[in-house]
Amino acid sequence: MLAGGVGAAKFLRGLIQSTDPASLTIVVNTADDDRFFGLAVSPDLDTIIYTLAGMASRRRGWGLAGDRFRCLEALGLLYDDAGWFRLGDRDLATHIYRTDRLAAGASLSAVTAELGAAFGVAARVLPMTDHPVRTVLDTDDGHLSFQRYLVERRTRPSVRGIRYRGASAARPAPGVVRAIRDADAVIIAPSNPFLSIGPMLAVPGIRSALSARRRPVAAVSPLVRGRAVTGPLARLLRRFGHPVSSVGIARCYRPFLDLLVIDRRDGRDAFALEREGCRAVLADTIFSTPRRAARTARALLAALELA
Amino acid sequence: MLAGGVGAAKFLRGLIQSTDPASLTIVVNTADDDRFFGLAVSPDLDTIIYTLAGMASRRRGWGLAGDRFRCLEALGLLYDDAGWFRLGDRDLATHIYRTDRLAAGASLSAVTAELGAAFGVAARVLPMTDHPVRTVLDTDDGHLSFQRYLVERRTRPSVRGIRYRGASAARPAPGVVRAIRDADAVIIAPSNPFLSIGPMLAVPGIRSALSARRRPVAAVSPLVRGRAVTGPLARLLRRFGHPVSSVGIARCYRPFLDLLVIDRRDGRDAFALEREGCRAVLADTIFSTPRRAARTARALLAALELA
Repeated sequence: MLAGGVGAAKFLRGLIQSTDPASLTIVVNTADDDRFFGLAVSPDLDTIIYTLAGMASRRRGWGLAGDRFRCLEALGLLYDDAGWFRLGDRDLATHIYRTDRLAAGASLSAVTAELGAAFGVAARVLPMTDHPVRTVLDTDDGHLSFQRYLVERRTRPSVRGIRYRGASAARPAPGVVRAIRDADAVIIAPSNPFLSIGPMLAVPGIRSALSARRRPVAAVSPLVRGRAVTGPLARLLRRFGHPVSSVGIARCYRPFLDLLVIDRRDGRDAFALEREGCRAVLADTIFSTPRRAARTARALLAALELA
Repeated sequence: MLAGGVGAAKFLRGLIQSTDPASLTIVVNTADDDRFFGLAVSPDLDTIIYTLAGMASRRRGWGLAGDRFRCLEALGLLYDDAGWFRLGDRDLATHIYRTDRLAAGASLSAVTAELGAAFGVAARVLPMTDHPVRTVLDTDDGHLSFQRYLVERRTRPSVRGIRYRGASAARPAPGVVRAIRDADAVIIAPSNPFLSIGPMLAVPGIRSALSARRRPVAAVSPLVRGRAVTGPLARLLRRFGHPVSSVGIARCYRPFLDLLVIDRRDGRDAFALEREGCRAVLADTIFSTPRRAARTARALLAALELA
């Protein structure tokens, strides 16, 4: 699976009920990574690990369930600009550990494997790259890092362009290309194609590994009836000249996408998708519970002849 | 005041009731500083700042009052060797901030001034040096850092020698020598002469500034009836060939010590001290409450003709 954060996690909660987690390799976007208070934070990696560990906060959609914010409150007394990015007390341990290990020369892959093991995660979680890649949004509020755009500004600024800084010089993390090449199926999570999957495709070697596959590449659409389940996806599709529909999503993943899971309510898109050379699987794509996600995961695995 | 951590803080709680805190400069031992989880921890500086801010935990003697340990618990899942050095959730904010600022190139002095301001501390708190100095104890359990010796091993190993690594190459932090030179009085806190004040005296320039003073240098004895109020002081005095008494303390601070506050119960030491050229002031030196400490602070200030 190629995964961003929250959207991917919701689907993943179902997928791990439908297949052996140990059989999964999840390649995760790291272009949202940032430093807060000097600590190395990898929001998407952490969301995926916490989700796989069953420790993610479902209510908030980020961080650890039941976490408190005492340290963050105290940081607010020391930093002018604190608090807009919420880091819980137990969550901070992850960032302290990652920062410590990176400073000691460990790769992000190695640290991610260590965190996965510490959290008892059976699936293999890989950062897309060990090199720094940062999504920078060119907006009418100036250039914004991904977290400032998403969390601080709540995606309000209008986006003129997106840059994945560092991507062209990055290499896929160890195991990423091989996982894409050898997997029975690649599933692109219902994440934002521009903000979560786009950075991955910009790392040389990942897109070509997807294109070179003979076995299917599937995606789960993050759009229902032309609206993103969360976030600024509809606006971004429009901005970059794509139809705000399943067809727009499929075009983001051209030419390597073979199959797209779309919501039943978007059934009319199926014909258009087939014309684009992409098979449509109709299912429920509102993953409000693990059970709903599991049903859709099973439908996808069946369509891929993996279940 | 020259100060270590807990012992100094107990006296300081009284001193700030007896004099304007803004008139105080406190030069603090940094040879107990250490890195935990990659975070720069300055236990003595923090104890002094938290005490001056009225936020120190009196019950525990370290850290912030009412702090919790959720982050540390989570760190315990990530590190094999976590937990023996207790860092509270709000306390961690101080260490995260210090680490962040030091990594950005700020000096420990600058960071300490920033922390003092953030905590609303009126007194000037200075690290003894901006250079790394580390107390290393040569024990029958091998070479131990100060915190491992004090906190992890609870001072049980027998000490053969003490080294202040880095001290000879260090310089006093900005303002330290001037403060020692210009102060109406220098007060050496009731801290351990070997483990808290010793490292300071080993930084070139500090001992000579004390010796060059014409106005008094006073100390408050951390011993009562030959026993240290806390810690391994009696054993260390014996180990280094000093009498385990006020006289032993005075000898640690020879030749610059003019006055020593000793406990009333050690009144018999007064004559021996006078023979050593050191004036004795008898008072209560068990600082179990700020009020008891304030009474002794007033007696000391009176003896110094500062009150």
